[in-house]
Amino acid sequence: MKAYLDNGNTTPVAEEVVEAMLPYLTEKYGHPLFIYSLGREANETVESASESIANTVGAKGSELTFTSGATEANDLAVRGIAKANKSKGKHIITSRVENPSVLRITEELERRGFKVDYLDVDSEGFIDLKQLGDLITNETILVSIIHASDEIGTIEPLKEVGEILEDQDHKVFFHTDAAASCARIPIDMDEMNLDLISISAHKIHGPKGIGALIAREGVKIEPINYGYLSLSNLRPGTENMPGIVGFQKAAELAFEDFDSKIDHMKKLRDKLMDGIEEKITETILHGPRGDDRSPANVNYSFKRVEGESILMQLDMRGISVATGSACATRKLEPSHVLTAIGVKPAVAHGAIRFTLSRMNTEKEIDYTLEVLPEVVEKLRELSPIK
Amino acid sequence: MKAYLDNGNTTPVAEEVVEAMLPYLTEKYGHPLFIYSLGREANETVESASESIANTVGAKGSELTFTSGATEANDLAVRGIAKANKSKGKHIITSRVENPSVLRITEELERRGFKVDYLDVDSEGFIDLKQLGDLITNETILVSIIHASDEIGTIEPLKEVGEILEDQDHKVFFHTDAAASCARIPIDMDEMNLDLISISAHKIHGPKGIGALIAREGVKIEPINYGYLSLSNLRPGTENMPGIVGFQKAAELAFEDFDSKIDHMKKLRDKLMDGIEEKITETILHGPRGDDRSPANVNYSFKRVEGESILMQLDMRGISVATGSACATRKLEPSHVLTAIGVKPAVAHGAIRFTLSRMNTEKEIDYTLEVLPEVVEKLRELSPIK
Repeated sequence: MKAYLDNGNTTPVAEEVVEAMLPYLTEKYGHPLFIYSLGREANETVESASESIANTVGAKGSELTFTSGATEANDLAVRGIAKANKSKGKHIITSRVENPSVLRITEELERRGFKVDYLDVDSEGFIDLKQLGDLITNETILVSIIHASDEIGTIEPLKEVGEILEDQDHKVFFHTDAAASCARIPIDMDEMNLDLISISAHKIHGPKGIGALIAREGVKIEPINYGYLSLSNLRPGTENMPGIVGFQKAAELAFEDFDSKIDHMKKLRDKLMDGIEEKITETILHGPRGDDRSPANVNYSFKRVEGESILMQLDMRGISVATGSACATRKLEPSHVLTAIGVKPAVAHGAIRFTLSRMNTEKEIDYTLEVLPEVVEKLRELSPIK
Repeated sequence: MKAYLDNGNTTPVAEEVVEAMLPYLTEKYGHPLFIYSLGREANETVESASESIANTVGAKGSELTFTSGATEANDLAVRGIAKANKSKGKHIITSRVENPSVLRITEELERRGFKVDYLDVDSEGFIDLKQLGDLITNETILVSIIHASDEIGTIEPLKEVGEILEDQDHKVFFHTDAAASCARIPIDMDEMNLDLISISAHKIHGPKGIGALIAREGVKIEPINYGYLSLSNLRPGTENMPGIVGFQKAAELAFEDFDSKIDHMKKLRDKLMDGIEEKITETILHGPRGDDRSPANVNYSFKRVEGESILMQLDMRGISVATGSACATRKLEPSHVLTAIGVKPAVAHGAIRFTLSRMNTEKEIDYTLEVLPEVVEKLRELSPIK
């Protein structure tokens, strides 16, 4: 038995996605810039994929730019807005619970003379809306808040952020990193007053190497990379055709009968959470409960055990999970998100993150609930800390 | 019958490449940063692919950084060197026959206060080595010269450039865009004294969306994109695993029995050139003849005919070629390379570029030589210019 519960880092590619990609790895190899038939076909394919992916968040195909992933999309959003609007102000607001991808970008902007404020979060990871309102000045050009924490599942109040920004006397652009929440939590750019959104294919059972930035019509943004601009005015380079087609198919699959897919993930999430709390003592849940939590995220610390040891033991039994920081497993730093919500380093190191997807099954959760308590118990027996 | 002779823009993916990629689109979906088994496997895959691709130009795996393509690799090379070394000088030398990808980058650096000199070329497209020597100053930090023109096939004297740079009192980094020449002309970074080289998978029967920059050990370079750095210290974002594996396989196939593949392309090239000159009157060859010409490139203007008309007529008969500027077919500007070698706009607009690959056959050339003369003749009959 296997259970892949690390869908926050990457997901298996859906079979239908591979099938959709294959023609673009074989007979349909045209370059979309070219005017002969193979090229025209490729061009139409890019347009139709843009339309279909953008529609899932209520945007238009012409507002979508393909990138090599959400990391590049975040970079293009944050630095692209900063570059294009610095004459209006050099102040950016983000939060302490962003993915490192966004934080590395804002740190670079600080080195370039921008002022960046990082919103505090409460013990469940929610940003402080009052603080946001207080921090906005005439110089503020961008607010970038993650849609839902990829680590602790907290769904941030983007609608309320959007309202605060709409109430300002001047335009403050609003970006969200939705790589972790896309295809897990509904997004409506209009309703949330969002100007920019970053998404990624490999987090929704699409291929690695392709993502997108959606920027609403009229948003003033500049490219951050240079080279020959192909179909896009914002991002140079030959389009990743198989990736684009795979992304389109992945989005179509994920959003087909979306509500029932969300319900399915919620059911699995609650089953896993109930099971852990019932079968294992001394656990600490990170992030909120209920509707404010991503249907896909479960994150617990197991006291007196190292997360890494649990991860390795689960791996030996076919279960894949993440520990500590979302991405930092080779770096051994405690998660900045757990630190932001006030979790002590010792407890943070014991955190295990499970990320579900529409493709997980109840059987996998049953199996995990069979194996995990044994693993934790054994490791506690061996632990020097009693 | 079909003949795809536009391998300069993009190539069909080889069957073996698709086969190699498939496991990474199905069961091998691990994220290389992660320490559990799926992740460790992915990590080893990236290392082995890096090694195997870097070896084809005499470099080490640790010197290779995967990018989304040659465009990004060029951007990383040129801007990455500029950023890391601007305290030593802000002078860059390149040529008038670079791919637009490099020219858009140097134009951006000019806007940022760098001085960029563009080497002139002679009527066959060769750069002026004397001019290069004269232009180098204490402020020069980088020389970037395309290996072989993707438009007119001129193989630039990189070895001689390398010698000139080695003779300088201070270090001048040497970069080449080898996207067009990789797997067509042998490259040895040591022999050419090259510090950096950009390559792309989709030009050598690999997939779109993956390329690489190889920067020799000790080369001072800074990232140009920000985000969470995965395995690479230079380029952020989750590795495009299927792309990386496809790139590796494409390189392995291309460099297996490399000499005979080069001979094959040369034979096809010469057959095509001889046939065109024998069967069609009033043609003008662009670029040199013989060993100084890429085995893959053929470029002729057919007087009194529009290149675009030839292209469309050939397309209707299953033959794909490029016209005018390498990439500009949707833009209708005359090729900057043809302009640089002194070709008049009217003649440049009639230029047709054929780019061969190891996968083309004699039959395809025979078919092209059957169709092309008829097409040119018919179009000339219709032409108002006599």
